[in-house]
Amino acid sequence: MRVGKVIGNVWATKKDEGLEGFKLLVIDQINPRTKEHDKTIVAVDAVGAGPGEMVLIVGGSTARFAANQHAPTDATVVGIIDTLEIYEESE
Amino acid sequence: MRVGKVIGNVWATKKDEGLEGFKLLVIDQINPRTKEHDKTIVAVDAVGAGPGEMVLIVGGSTARFAANQHAPTDATVVGIIDTLEIYEESE
Amino acid sequence: MRVGKVIGNVWATKKDEGLEGFKLLVIDQINPRTKEHDKTIVAVDAVGAGPGEMVLIVGGSTARFAANQHAPTDATVVGIIDTLEIYEESE
Amino acid sequence: MRVGKVIGNVWATKKDEGLEGFKLLVIDQINPRTKEHDKTIVAVDAVGAGPGEMVLIVGGSTARFAANQHAPTDATVVGIIDTLEIYEESE
Amino acid sequence: MRVGKVIGNVWATKKDEGLEGFKLLVIDQINPRTKEHDKTIVAVDAVGAGPGEMVLIVGGSTARFAANQHAPTDATVVGIIDTLEIYEESE
Repeated sequence: MRVGKVIGNVWATKKDEGLEGFKLLVIDQINPRTKEHDKTIVAVDAVGAGPGEMVLIVGGSTARFAANQHAPTDATVVGIIDTLEIYEESE
Repeated sequence: MRVGKVIGNVWATKKDEGLEGFKLLVIDQINPRTKEHDKTIVAVDAVGAGPGEMVLIVGGSTARFAANQHAPTDATVVGIIDTLEIYEESE
Repeated sequence: MRVGKVIGNVWATKKDEGLEGFKLLVIDQINPRTKEHDKTIVAVDAVGAGPGEMVLIVGGSTARFAANQHAPTDATVVGIIDTLEIYEESE
Repeated sequence: MRVGKVIGNVWATKKDEGLEGFKLLVIDQINPRTKEHDKTIVAVDAVGAGPGEMVLIVGGSTARFAANQHAPTDATVVGIIDTLEIYEESE
Repeated sequence: MRVGKVIGNVWATKKDEGLEGFKLLVIDQINPRTKEHDKTIVAVDAVGAGPGEMVLIVGGSTARFAANQHAPTDATVVGIIDTLEIYEESE
């Protein structure tokens, strides 16, 4: 899974009906070791994440299962991170 | 899901019959935070997107479900973006 | 889906039987907007593409369905491009 | 599969119930040939890997099967590496 | 599918039982057009590939089917390349 920060929202009136009722969050994917930014994506929110929260995002077909099996998504927020501990800087 | 702009069309007479009847759109994938261009792909249009519109694209096996379960696609347009709000520039 | 050019062939006597009977094409993946080269891959040919032809390639599990549901491929040629029209250079 | 080093842990109270009971490990993906770092991800631990251990990570829908078929993960640790032998530096 | 060279082996005593009995090969993925190295991965060997051999690797869920439907792998060697012919250098 990827780590990211909730940095925005998307509204789309004309969309697949399977996305109805889901919040569509803009996620800034971040490397938790180097803090570098990676690709910014849009994910279905399955846990009620708010602006600025650090979250866990699952991709691929599993994202569909994590939403409600029918939502046409390949990225779903499946956790709000309380703590991310790095034991030691990886050589 | 990825964000992108509809920048073209593809016509292919010789193609898998599962693609018959679908518009094949050329999508310039764009990072909504940095506005950088990412890979340009071809996606099946499932919502009637037009030239220049900003759209949501789903990938992987879910793209097949979003089209009609049989179309051999790994990228499908599943929404036309009305508004994409970024709360704050992600550090 | 990705756009690419057929630039070669692969022969492999010792291979998964599910690949028997399929032409294995070397595809130079090309960004249709910037014309930049991307990763070169090997794809199962499902539409009879020839040397130098510009083609549409589908990836992931859908590639298996586009071949014959059993071929162990994650890349299949699903169309030969007649025309690829770019409306306007994406800003 | 990818090779990586266990460099941390993630705790998330608010998460998909399918992730309950699994340790969520921060993995520094490393190229075993060049030792370069690749993307740092979070993976479900299915084999009891500890801090600093070198592990094998599987991705995609297979990661779900490797966990318990229901956990909404796209990355699962499926082996703890005893030895990784490189025969010769690849030209 | 990707092209790569077998450059090593991985041994892991503590691993998912679905990987039992499979050789785990270290594969240097190579771009067959530019000869550039890409990510080095670990793949299940389904065709008996030996050190230094050039092979075809399939990824994603299809890799599971190419192994034995149960092995938790997202990369499987499905062919040993006899000849890889490039017709012409892709512009």
